[in-house]
Amino acid sequence: MAEMVNVAVDAMGGDNAPSEIVKGAVEAVNEDRRIRVFLVGREPAIKEELKKYTYDAAQLEIVHTEEVIETAEPPVMAIRKKKDSSIVKCMNLVKDKECDALVSAGSTGAILVGGQVIVGRIKGVERPPLAPIVPSVKGVSLLLDCGANVDARPSQLVQFAKMGSVYMESVIGIKNPRVGLVNIGAEEEKGNALTKETYPLLQNCPEINFIGNVEARDIPHGAADVLVCEAFVGNVVLKMLEGVSSALVGKIKEGMKSSLRSKIGGILVKPALKKTLKGFSTEEYGGAPLLGLNGLVVKTHGSSKAIEIKNSILQCIAFKEQNINEKIKEKIVLED
Amino acid sequence: MAEMVNVAVDAMGGDNAPSEIVKGAVEAVNEDRRIRVFLVGREPAIKEELKKYTYDAAQLEIVHTEEVIETAEPPVMAIRKKKDSSIVKCMNLVKDKECDALVSAGSTGAILVGGQVIVGRIKGVERPPLAPIVPSVKGVSLLLDCGANVDARPSQLVQFAKMGSVYMESVIGIKNPRVGLVNIGAEEEKGNALTKETYPLLQNCPEINFIGNVEARDIPHGAADVLVCEAFVGNVVLKMLEGVSSALVGKIKEGMKSSLRSKIGGILVKPALKKTLKGFSTEEYGGAPLLGLNGLVVKTHGSSKAIEIKNSILQCIAFKEQNINEKIKEKIVLED
Repeated sequence: MAEMVNVAVDAMGGDNAPSEIVKGAVEAVNEDRRIRVFLVGREPAIKEELKKYTYDAAQLEIVHTEEVIETAEPPVMAIRKKKDSSIVKCMNLVKDKECDALVSAGSTGAILVGGQVIVGRIKGVERPPLAPIVPSVKGVSLLLDCGANVDARPSQLVQFAKMGSVYMESVIGIKNPRVGLVNIGAEEEKGNALTKETYPLLQNCPEINFIGNVEARDIPHGAADVLVCEAFVGNVVLKMLEGVSSALVGKIKEGMKSSLRSKIGGILVKPALKKTLKGFSTEEYGGAPLLGLNGLVVKTHGSSKAIEIKNSILQCIAFKEQNINEKIKEKIVLED
Repeated sequence: MAEMVNVAVDAMGGDNAPSEIVKGAVEAVNEDRRIRVFLVGREPAIKEELKKYTYDAAQLEIVHTEEVIETAEPPVMAIRKKKDSSIVKCMNLVKDKECDALVSAGSTGAILVGGQVIVGRIKGVERPPLAPIVPSVKGVSLLLDCGANVDARPSQLVQFAKMGSVYMESVIGIKNPRVGLVNIGAEEEKGNALTKETYPLLQNCPEINFIGNVEARDIPHGAADVLVCEAFVGNVVLKMLEGVSSALVGKIKEGMKSSLRSKIGGILVKPALKKTLKGFSTEEYGGAPLLGLNGLVVKTHGSSKAIEIKNSILQCIAFKEQNINEKIKEKIVLED
């Protein structure tokens, strides 16, 4: 039988904590017997939520902490001072190998800092990228870096490409994933100083399947499986994906209410539309892993509901069973 | 009576040249008696197209040129060598003050280079930004820079903010336009080296209405009237807007075909939906001006149809009558 996958879950992080977090954790353990969750946070609040559900107690444990790191707090300070916070405790559980992974919907800054400072980087990894899965009309792509390291260097982008390829191949199951460099033109000589320097490095990297530059316009059409970019650009891509979708869906709903004819039509198309749009929502795919750390750190949306928490927890199984970190070590060490 | 507005139109530029370009030019002169168009390109081809329409011959003139600059040509070389190309001729008409403005759907690179080298910058302007109007659910915003100058400096972004404010106020008619800095977080200290340095400069600029950082997610929701960013980021914002819209609309159409029920609903909502989505299309608002030049240079999409050419030509009226370049000179000189 496979080993259990131990996941520390930050019960206090995010807009819907602890109720949706606890719900998602229970759903995950009920869906897969390989999962053991450590719910980290204020015990009384967690217990109160757990009363609502049935689950195998052997798969779920509470780890009490008193403090909570707020989203607005300066992250470095918060990680240093709030030793008894749910995020720091989750990080320590991973660092001490009591857990394989942690999932948090809390402060992005604190998670990025804690990941590097407490969990620590794999030897050879320059910077751990935040790598969300983004939807496209053809399926999904991995976008990295998406917020961890602004003003990155070319060598770091090459590492992102390698780590992203391992993840897409082993966790998502895409053979020989196509790596694209996010750029403002298709030709090699296009772009800024960073992309111009990075292009030949990616081209000469035998361990990845580099397909060249990808323009932002083609990202939602599924132009590449692994999208490599500097964090500022990655953040803009991700937020535009979310912003345009929500703005457009709002507009469409408004349009459907504009006449009696369109109102009736709107009622008829609603179920099909809902299904279609669900496949294009960034929330359907669990959280974003922070790759290249000594353990798995998964950051989910601050607005996470139970479904996203559940998916984020379940994603830790493939990460452990496929030995992602061993594979990352091999690819990075090979180079250095 | 107002003076005529003379516009040089590149009849050979873009995927649909010369037919859609000529059509758009005729529609513009027929819509507004203040417009005089100089159709620049191969005379026989232009004449052939013009046969299809009626118009006041006093408002439309052909300027014959033999050469055409292709999209794939290296721009600097093309501008230098092809003196008898439609783009270079348009540029010279503006430089020599025979025309107030030029409109082209041709090679972006050649237009950016020609604008700087032939038409020339207003004294004091460091770099002329490409400034498309982008749709939001609330109306429109001006996004600059959107492709002209990658790796820009903070002082250049401040100039973009000033020029963009003049344009939005005088051409689009938005009083005291809200200027936002495109960034990856709302707080002042967020971002990369460029945005961190630019923020206080914008804050201390009395001539603009700076409202702070704007996250990409809020751009489609109309968070600011003037969106200031470096060209790489601006290009990603623009292309994501186009890419997500087209991907999502494709998905929705697919979803509507998924069952008989949704098919019937789809037929009923179609007219309302079409109207709604039209307001969210980047093609409805004419081309993007290249601001800060001694004359107006307007770049339209390579895929421009007659409607976009017409709107781009008509936009030149407000630009001239509102003395945009005089106002830009005042704002830039005030500072220096």
